[in-house]
Amino acid sequence: MKAGEDKLVKRIVKALAPKGDPWLALGVGDDAALLTPQPGYETILTCDWFLEGSHFLPGKHPADSIGWKCLARALSDIAAMGGQPKCFLLSLALPGKLTLKENGRRSRWLDEFLGGLRRAARRFGCVLAGGDTTHRREMLINVTVVGEVLAGRAIRRSGAKAGDRIFVSGTLGEAELGLQKLRRSTRISPKNDRALRKHLYPEPRLALGQWLADSKLASSMIDLSDGLSSDLPRLCAASRVGARIEVAQIPSPHLRQTGSRRFDALGLALNGGDDYELLFTVSANKASRIPRSFQGIALTEIGEVTRARRVVMVQQDGTTKPLLPRGWDPFRT
Amino acid sequence: MKAGEDKLVKRIVKALAPKGDPWLALGVGDDAALLTPQPGYETILTCDWFLEGSHFLPGKHPADSIGWKCLARALSDIAAMGGQPKCFLLSLALPGKLTLKENGRRSRWLDEFLGGLRRAARRFGCVLAGGDTTHRREMLINVTVVGEVLAGRAIRRSGAKAGDRIFVSGTLGEAELGLQKLRRSTRISPKNDRALRKHLYPEPRLALGQWLADSKLASSMIDLSDGLSSDLPRLCAASRVGARIEVAQIPSPHLRQTGSRRFDALGLALNGGDDYELLFTVSANKASRIPRSFQGIALTEIGEVTRARRVVMVQQDGTTKPLLPRGWDPFRT
Repeated sequence: MKAGEDKLVKRIVKALAPKGDPWLALGVGDDAALLTPQPGYETILTCDWFLEGSHFLPGKHPADSIGWKCLARALSDIAAMGGQPKCFLLSLALPGKLTLKENGRRSRWLDEFLGGLRRAARRFGCVLAGGDTTHRREMLINVTVVGEVLAGRAIRRSGAKAGDRIFVSGTLGEAELGLQKLRRSTRISPKNDRALRKHLYPEPRLALGQWLADSKLASSMIDLSDGLSSDLPRLCAASRVGARIEVAQIPSPHLRQTGSRRFDALGLALNGGDDYELLFTVSANKASRIPRSFQGIALTEIGEVTRARRVVMVQQDGTTKPLLPRGWDPFRT
Repeated sequence: MKAGEDKLVKRIVKALAPKGDPWLALGVGDDAALLTPQPGYETILTCDWFLEGSHFLPGKHPADSIGWKCLARALSDIAAMGGQPKCFLLSLALPGKLTLKENGRRSRWLDEFLGGLRRAARRFGCVLAGGDTTHRREMLINVTVVGEVLAGRAIRRSGAKAGDRIFVSGTLGEAELGLQKLRRSTRISPKNDRALRKHLYPEPRLALGQWLADSKLASSMIDLSDGLSSDLPRLCAASRVGARIEVAQIPSPHLRQTGSRRFDALGLALNGGDDYELLFTVSANKASRIPRSFQGIALTEIGEVTRARRVVMVQQDGTTKPLLPRGWDPFRT
């Protein structure tokens, strides 16, 4: 006689269990996982909510995107430290209809969810180490990720100095554009739409983060999860500095790509969440060593760190105005 | 201008932030935490849901019990490995009314919740390292705990051998009795009620678990979170063995303590969840080295491990019957 929770855990393990990882001394199936840290490395630890209604819409988001994204977005925090992912814990609360058999067959939703999660886990080299499952009316997901970084090499939010140059990877606002398209339409496919793909299957910038840590080029770093206007002030607050960014330099979605003037490209780039690009600072004398692109991802200088603890943007007409945090905030009233 | 989420994080940090822990190289406030593992130790990693309606009732459970228990129950998995707690991540989703100011004062619920959590964190030596916060109609909590254990000393579920003696700590079923009392009454106080106290403020058996690991006495171990009838079969399945337990030996709540015959003491002891006692096995030739109590907690031999992969109980009249998993299972249909 097998209880329901044990059955669900078996399905998860079958889909995701790693084939022998020396780093993971003990994986799923005991009271806790056991990891064997490498000497000389620090352990990176982070977790992320991914909740129905708040972070994804079950009627709009495919199950395999939910599986991919719940891990990818947590991994973005590992990227932002310059670390390498090792393993993750999956906390899953699901309605019975998503876990029970349908007409004698296993539920398709769960298979697709676990499929997306497995693809992300393999792609980013992060194995399932454990988790917790329960039954719930709404889908709730929480992912804890563990990574490693050579001791002393992690890139913190707090290292920016006045005069440092500010860089971002990729194009900002694309994921928000993808979300808006997803909300408006029922007939677009991620295959043909770059913005939608970025929203549904984000790619944490792990290789870039590791390169910046290995090369000791970045003085500070944060990942852009809530939007530039919210995350840049966080980096500045942690570093006790300000910033001046050039609106003309911000890599925003092309109007051609937005498909219409209904979309405000600058607004998307400043306030759109879910991009999972990296924002980092580089001292002025090292800035020339940052290439224009890294493994096909554009790296763009958008401004500089200032002693004055304000975050301002220089507009196209040369005037300056404060950058107000208008990115995603679940507690905004 | 501070956004709502950043304000909430500040309150959590103020209540819980540790005062310099060399093991925690970087705590709350960056993209992720950085830990410095001790050479020669393995890292223990576990997480636990604690959800409104499923695991606690906001109208019945005091806020400081919710804070205490969300950490204590996750720590029980560290105890079950024989490990020492180090730090935790707190994922918190809360309704706005619990985080906003009331009549110009900070909300009392959040202060009390953080107070209970702080007491548990100090009591069990586990510091806040990070987490994630969001806004939600219902209270959702997920806690990840990290611990350490000397390499090779962790006690797994899978080490039980036929002939080993089976022990449990404490009294089983008390926490379930406490929950039933809580549901029935509005006027009992944990000060005067041992069962209620155990339900609201459980004590993970960390010192016992560490002693069993250090002394190499236990061949396998699991914590009793869902109930003996569910957790003993899990240990047996992991060890590929069976078990025979003696009903007469099971330390169940005294009838005097239950206060009435409405409560079935054996049923509580077999199927009651939330006790967070330890169930462990000891080879026959070492069993005499297990004391009758450890730091005031009774240790009781309740049966033995069998080669036959069935879990049975010998009843008071000498007849045997299968022990069916009737502990807590969120997916039971």
